[in-house]
Amino acid sequence: MDDGVDHLAFERNKAQFDVEEMKIVWAGSRQEFELSDRISRLVASDPAFRKDDRTMLSRKELFKNTLRKAAYAWKRIIELRLNEQEAYKLRSFVDQPAFTDLHWGMFVPVIQGQATDEQQQKWLPLAYRMQIIGCYAQTELGHGSNVQGLETTATFDPKTDEFIVHSPTLTSSKWWPGGLGKISTHAVVYARLIIDGEDHGVHGFIVQLRSLDDHLPLPGITIGDIGMKFGNAAYNSMDNGLLRFDHVRIPRNQMLMRVSQVTREGKYVHSNVPRQLVYGTMVNVRQKIVADASVALSRAVCIATRYSAVRRQFGSHNGGPETQVIDYKTQQARLFPLLASAYAFRFVGEWLKWLYMDVTKRLQVNDFSTLPEAHACTAGLKSLTTTATADGIEECRKLCGGHGYLCSSGLPELFAVYVPACTYEGDNIVLLLQVARHLMKTVSQVGSGNKPVGTTAYMARLKQLMQYQSDVKKAEDWLKPNVVLEAFEARAVRMSVACAQNLSQFSNPEDGFQELAADLVEAAVAHCQLIVVSKFIEKLQQDIPAKGVRQQLEVLCSTYALFLLHKHLGDFLSTGCINPKQGSLVSEQLRNLYSQIRPNAIALVDAFNYTDHYLGSILGRYNGNVYPKLYEEAWKDPLNDSVVPDGFKEYIQPMLKQQLRNARL
Amino acid sequence: MDDGVDHLAFERNKAQFDVEEMKIVWAGSRQEFELSDRISRLVASDPAFRKDDRTMLSRKELFKNTLRKAAYAWKRIIELRLNEQEAYKLRSFVDQPAFTDLHWGMFVPVIQGQATDEQQQKWLPLAYRMQIIGCYAQTELGHGSNVQGLETTATFDPKTDEFIVHSPTLTSSKWWPGGLGKISTHAVVYARLIIDGEDHGVHGFIVQLRSLDDHLPLPGITIGDIGMKFGNAAYNSMDNGLLRFDHVRIPRNQMLMRVSQVTREGKYVHSNVPRQLVYGTMVNVRQKIVADASVALSRAVCIATRYSAVRRQFGSHNGGPETQVIDYKTQQARLFPLLASAYAFRFVGEWLKWLYMDVTKRLQVNDFSTLPEAHACTAGLKSLTTTATADGIEECRKLCGGHGYLCSSGLPELFAVYVPACTYEGDNIVLLLQVARHLMKTVSQVGSGNKPVGTTAYMARLKQLMQYQSDVKKAEDWLKPNVVLEAFEARAVRMSVACAQNLSQFSNPEDGFQELAADLVEAAVAHCQLIVVSKFIEKLQQDIPAKGVRQQLEVLCSTYALFLLHKHLGDFLSTGCINPKQGSLVSEQLRNLYSQIRPNAIALVDAFNYTDHYLGSILGRYNGNVYPKLYEEAWKDPLNDSVVPDGFKEYIQPMLKQQLRNARL
Repeated sequence: MDDGVDHLAFERNKAQFDVEEMKIVWAGSRQEFELSDRISRLVASDPAFRKDDRTMLSRKELFKNTLRKAAYAWKRIIELRLNEQEAYKLRSFVDQPAFTDLHWGMFVPVIQGQATDEQQQKWLPLAYRMQIIGCYAQTELGHGSNVQGLETTATFDPKTDEFIVHSPTLTSSKWWPGGLGKISTHAVVYARLIIDGEDHGVHGFIVQLRSLDDHLPLPGITIGDIGMKFGNAAYNSMDNGLLRFDHVRIPRNQMLMRVSQVTREGKYVHSNVPRQLVYGTMVNVRQKIVADASVALSRAVCIATRYSAVRRQFGSHNGGPETQVIDYKTQQARLFPLLASAYAFRFVGEWLKWLYMDVTKRLQVNDFSTLPEAHACTAGLKSLTTTATADGIEECRKLCGGHGYLCSSGLPELFAVYVPACTYEGDNIVLLLQVARHLMKTVSQVGSGNKPVGTTAYMARLKQLMQYQSDVKKAEDWLKPNVVLEAFEARAVRMSVACAQNLSQFSNPEDGFQELAADLVEAAVAHCQLIVVSKFIEKLQQDIPAKGVRQQLEVLCSTYALFLLHKHLGDFLSTGCINPKQGSLVSEQLRNLYSQIRPNAIALVDAFNYTDHYLGSILGRYNGNVYPKLYEEAWKDPLNDSVVPDGFKEYIQPMLKQQLRNARL
Repeated sequence: MDDGVDHLAFERNKAQFDVEEMKIVWAGSRQEFELSDRISRLVASDPAFRKDDRTMLSRKELFKNTLRKAAYAWKRIIELRLNEQEAYKLRSFVDQPAFTDLHWGMFVPVIQGQATDEQQQKWLPLAYRMQIIGCYAQTELGHGSNVQGLETTATFDPKTDEFIVHSPTLTSSKWWPGGLGKISTHAVVYARLIIDGEDHGVHGFIVQLRSLDDHLPLPGITIGDIGMKFGNAAYNSMDNGLLRFDHVRIPRNQMLMRVSQVTREGKYVHSNVPRQLVYGTMVNVRQKIVADASVALSRAVCIATRYSAVRRQFGSHNGGPETQVIDYKTQQARLFPLLASAYAFRFVGEWLKWLYMDVTKRLQVNDFSTLPEAHACTAGLKSLTTTATADGIEECRKLCGGHGYLCSSGLPELFAVYVPACTYEGDNIVLLLQVARHLMKTVSQVGSGNKPVGTTAYMARLKQLMQYQSDVKKAEDWLKPNVVLEAFEARAVRMSVACAQNLSQFSNPEDGFQELAADLVEAAVAHCQLIVVSKFIEKLQQDIPAKGVRQQLEVLCSTYALFLLHKHLGDFLSTGCINPKQGSLVSEQLRNLYSQIRPNAIALVDAFNYTDHYLGSILGRYNGNVYPKLYEEAWKDPLNDSVVPDGFKEYIQPMLKQQLRNARL
């Protein structure tokens, strides 16, 4: 089908920077680039990892296909002796959610983090060799965000030295855990620890679910899949499950005991391991989510950008070709801010990785001083980036017009598989309220002389920022990083201060917090946007050798910041940070920036270095040869197996022949 | 499973208005209410129309299931002697896209509108009895929005008195028409009319596609399905198709000749039927789309509102129940504006129905004076309502937390089946640019003394509105309809005038229009929002007898307007219509309005009068008995047919037993 021609070569020739250099900046380092490049090609070139037929499979076929890929991937990982990082990359380039995601991403890390050394010695070797397969059973039918409200109980029985795990109500059924429904042999189950009638709150327990011989659920255990989810393939390759316990007994030493223990006598005691360790884990999980956001958004942007250069519509002169849709300003004004966002999220994700290491180092020496700020910051960035990415993927789909609605565009699946990120690991609105709480605390402490740290450090300049008025006089002024940064700082501070003032009107602060929640969320968003903008600016202050690359990143950084400024103009105007004239200069400068991005757009998405396999999109194909491939792909649909469809004789023929009355329907 | 208890009765008892009266206001009239009520119950009570298993079917099973339902529906329509309106309602309550939608919604109306009397006498009786099944073949693989760019040709052959229909290129393949891929026997095909080498532009032709005996495509015709689309079931029940012609001959009298004709001698002539008729059809199609938007959004809002009252999370005191999530202000601030939008779109849709009748009456007496304004207005409202509805459905899904991601919530399917409305019948951004063109023309004509009509009439007060400054002093002032209306008018006028002024800087107006397209789109949105707000206000000036009902609608109207005002605060501030203090009074008043909606929320969605069958959502069930039903439903997934899943022996067992090396994968 392919003619060996690069139909986008004319676009690639326009680029004003070295794409290979940009690939390394995007990847984070030459080493990271080479790793991703090697593993992604390995997966793409192996027909066993084919995924173009995925959306046409029934649930059962899809699930079996996923099991095969997971087993094959594991076989290859062993054969090629891949290290942990390489194995992780391989699984992510296979690009099909599977029980292994939970085994490696949740079960193993929880044991590493919450089990005693002795427990780790028992369980980790089994898990590392996949002699057992584990999942993470926390959420229940009636309880998601509110972990402290879980109902499952684990009651200590001193007679037998066991815990009795039980589901007392329907709503206490475990519900959602991936890998649980059909595959996992074990789970870390979160349950209320009950000793002698006393409730000690929620703790983790290792529970075997299925026989290692015949895979049947063990006595007292009911397990099943919770059913179809959003999208054709998407997360339907995962066996998200339900789980009920009827007085299931496990040995006492299967409670995860690193932080607190139950003794043989039934005493509940704490070790000297700080409880704050949990927050370190949370920072780690969320920094991964932010990194994933930049991957998901950049995939969608890559597809939409390439197809916008291929697609032509209107504007033909004298029978010549129509205009590429990427040349329309409305297309640019929707697409290029998303391109800039993908880069912005990439760099803030990189910084979060550093933050996690910093927090970990401090925890090791019992320094908890930066923890609340780090926790708020990662919560906020998780919320901001996942919301923007989910919306951005759908916007990219719309930017591809009608064809974006076809599964072969790759975008419907990308959306459906991505959106749960807005809900899992903390609902995005609940997280913003946590950020807001931290901001309110910080504002109140600034008054009493406490020095805010990390991403809230700017609040130390509260007085100065309350006085701030932008001195922008012409559109180019908006290209200066400090000008942008101060405007974002001033807006964020003033929104927080306004909330704090309104809160002080309430006699009960908690009532005020509930009543003003919507305003608090907006203040939290303002703060989080400032973080992303400031980390992008910091990135540009690092050593970026290639001049062309730096210039492109400067343009993208300005685009991201000014796009936000325009979108939230109401915030900036109502807080008096800028005036209407300065607001209209933002629009002017944005148009200018879009023109600068235009010739570089294709090269900027090439820099993500995605294989056609990983992209999984006909519209986003590297060589731009879209239409013949779309046509070819259509014929593969099962409906095209026969010229006359199943059901014609029973239902359509009687209709056409006016014989419906006697038809059996 | 159901316990006969209404778990939401305590919510329904809180309502401060008569739900039965509101049902009639929502439906438009008592007659409309009774019709919908009767037909929806008819469908809901018939097991043949069961749809809860839809998302678990493979493509082929789903398609066959759709054919059966379509035939059965037609059989019932005949048996019950339903009239046209009743039959339409029945098809829409079956709630599964099918070829019949195109047959009745496009094929038949096009023949009614564009065929001569003689042609109608031949084709309509066949279509009315479904002895032929037709579709509408306009868009091509390479041509969507730009109808004038279609490539398919219909060349007149004077020797045989025939047209030769041909697809000269791959991109000229017809692509997307619903009902085409597998079912239609006929199509209205749009093609360039070529006579004697001269291109007369795009015209419609009736072409038989398949044999009426064996259903095989006729010689020279290639047809197939274009493959899987977004969502599990959604539009995959429709055979959107591709179609290629290899010199297919049709008789001359199969060109639709009401407006222009080709004579036996090959002369191209026009009848005295005005071409503007086409615009009348467009107004009609788009008013239906706006009506559908209010239906789709209200379904999503109904689900999210009921579930928000069922779902409890956090806030338990002394072991009591947790707080209903509908009581959280953040939930209210996201949900209630969507509830208000559903009502707003309902009423603007009702008004558009009137507009269509008005335009039709005028066309009959050759009065084209209101046509450009009516055309711009319907284009804009189609764009505004479909975009807001697509986004609103997804927001409702997120408001249901994790469980909203399950297909059994109904929301993933509702989203997937709805989103194409943003693209079909005019891409939403392209439509807004058409509105903007009309606005720019109107602004320029106001200067030269022309009186703007219809929804642009406010522009006659341009000078006055340019001087306007809101005199709002306290939050309650924002409840006055005139205060709101003037603010929206002033904002819309000023954004249009600012665009016009910026355009005048360009020597070539078309260059300016392209360059400033993003600003023009924003001005068009401001104008369209004004229309919706003003039509809601007009509705309230009508006779609404029940006092409680009127009060609720006043609250919803204020909520809709102030929500928009807050969302687009930047527009209102930067144009100087209001000041920051007045902006913060909007937020204050919104909180107040949300509190007023809260006790009435369940009753306000009950007023939509949707059956549980039509809603198709476990989360949105009328009686609120959600969790037992979710649990029951999960077990129906095909993956739960067996305890040990297909593929376990081949793939998982070897993994657990460390025997992968020898496994065949």
